[in-house]
Amino acid sequence: MNKQMNVTKVGILGFGGLGQAAAQVLTPKQEMKWVAVADQKGYAYQPEGLTVQSCLDSYRQHGSVGYLEPGGTLSTTSIRDLIQTSPVNAYFLALPNLPNTFMADVVQEFINAGWQGVLVDALKRTTAMETVLGMREQLQAAGITYLTGCGATPGLLTAAATVAAQSFAEIHEVKITFGVGIANWEAYRATIREDIAHMPGYTVEQAKAMTDEEVAALLERTNGILELQNMEHADDLMLELAGICPRDRVSVGGVVDTRNADKPLSTNVQVTGRTFEGKIATHTFTLGDETSMAANVCGTALGYLKAGMAFHRQNCYGIMTAAEVMPKFVH
Amino acid sequence: MNKQMNVTKVGILGFGGLGQAAAQVLTPKQEMKWVAVADQKGYAYQPEGLTVQSCLDSYRQHGSVGYLEPGGTLSTTSIRDLIQTSPVNAYFLALPNLPNTFMADVVQEFINAGWQGVLVDALKRTTAMETVLGMREQLQAAGITYLTGCGATPGLLTAAATVAAQSFAEIHEVKITFGVGIANWEAYRATIREDIAHMPGYTVEQAKAMTDEEVAALLERTNGILELQNMEHADDLMLELAGICPRDRVSVGGVVDTRNADKPLSTNVQVTGRTFEGKIATHTFTLGDETSMAANVCGTALGYLKAGMAFHRQNCYGIMTAAEVMPKFVH
Repeated sequence: MNKQMNVTKVGILGFGGLGQAAAQVLTPKQEMKWVAVADQKGYAYQPEGLTVQSCLDSYRQHGSVGYLEPGGTLSTTSIRDLIQTSPVNAYFLALPNLPNTFMADVVQEFINAGWQGVLVDALKRTTAMETVLGMREQLQAAGITYLTGCGATPGLLTAAATVAAQSFAEIHEVKITFGVGIANWEAYRATIREDIAHMPGYTVEQAKAMTDEEVAALLERTNGILELQNMEHADDLMLELAGICPRDRVSVGGVVDTRNADKPLSTNVQVTGRTFEGKIATHTFTLGDETSMAANVCGTALGYLKAGMAFHRQNCYGIMTAAEVMPKFVH
Repeated sequence: MNKQMNVTKVGILGFGGLGQAAAQVLTPKQEMKWVAVADQKGYAYQPEGLTVQSCLDSYRQHGSVGYLEPGGTLSTTSIRDLIQTSPVNAYFLALPNLPNTFMADVVQEFINAGWQGVLVDALKRTTAMETVLGMREQLQAAGITYLTGCGATPGLLTAAATVAAQSFAEIHEVKITFGVGIANWEAYRATIREDIAHMPGYTVEQAKAMTDEEVAALLERTNGILELQNMEHADDLMLELAGICPRDRVSVGGVVDTRNADKPLSTNVQVTGRTFEGKIATHTFTLGDETSMAANVCGTALGYLKAGMAFHRQNCYGIMTAAEVMPKFVH
């Protein structure tokens, strides 16, 4: 759109299902270039741009993007090393929520390194988000613009709920119901464990400690279906911080089918409130079933990354949630 | 929410159906106070806050808010006089779109007066919005933060479309279909003529020149129904400027029932696009039927007015559309 387009150099931390999808979403973009990636065992940086297939080959065949030739480096402190050595404008933190302090620990690495730029996460858990929100002043002082909760839910649906709320004098309920269909759960090992941690009878620690065999056995018992209710999703915190309603009026639940790429129900958010005339009504935002979790999470995350770049150029640092900022469309 | 809340002093320009509804929406707000209003024949200012009923009485019984005692002033240059004499932080421009340069002429009055603050409009017509967008540099120099297109459509639905677009690599179509039910069209005389101007066989000038009797005769022939297609709505311009899609992919149409407060169909926006995996899908945002045009327009306008105040406090001046900014919830 802009002839003198500034190309944003983007890094991805984490190269599981989410990180891989983000790399694919990034590849055709003209105004962003994917130059850096890190997993637990290594990292890769190529100033001219990484290619998804080469990174996938290194990751799948050898166990880390650090084996990439050229550009790969093996390291047990891969994130720290990547931050310190590679010029990157913005990172998408495609990392697990668990433990709840993990994202905050990674953010601390950026601050410690004196890095300046834009960070975007797709955090889901309220507790994890509260931890990163507590770093507001450190982030401001560091010159980092951090946008949190920028996936699908929270993220896309939270932003839609914020817009929807405008018709009402008071919000009575925000109800998010998602349907997820994945053909092969083994591509989303970390995400599935996070989902299981939301089921009755499972703690975060128990879910994280499950072996692949134990996950498979659980899914065998449920015909591959995970039904989740009253999930700890940071939509509640984000909508409360945005002044929409107290967090206990926000609920998140859903159905995950781990054996079918088709969604078991259409993901939607319903915002119910009272208008100034005293009428009770519900606005509904429904996602097309053909949109994958990867499209809804990664597209949104990059849209917020672009919005974050605009704030960063205006020397606006600190941390904001997806409910406070309009995402920008990335070309 | 905030104990040391800054109360924004809000003015309303225009006291037809839209301005009157905005006054009602404003009345219970804690963080905003309605202090000023102008119509064609006069204006009123009360630093402690205006009351809707008193203004309605003056307007209906005497023909102008300028008859209000105390606070009212009769003037044939009511807007200019109000701007120059009254301390107001932000104005909602609840004025007709027609003629297309009318809003721009009013904005020029603010610039000429050396006024600084926030302006919000609910402009509908693309041509009118192009005119005010052309004033960007003047507004920046003047220290005015102007948010345009902040009604329902454009406004609420345009913002929802911008959020919805994030799932897609390319947007194929944005289709807005609105249903409006009004029990008594005579409360929305200007709005109805703007609608008629969108009907086949009517120009803007013809619609504006229609007498009330001619409008009534037209509605008699259509059983009170106005069917509008391919309307000139600035959603197209706003989504193009936000980089979502070329304006010719955006269409706005609707059905207005002038004899029934119930909506003839649920107002909705559908965003169809292609995901990064090549899937075609449609996200849909549907408004609850019980929400009135007044609730959807005025609630949104005030949400953007609050967002505009935050920009103005940060010395961020100029003009932005509702597709570029996340509205804030007003308490």
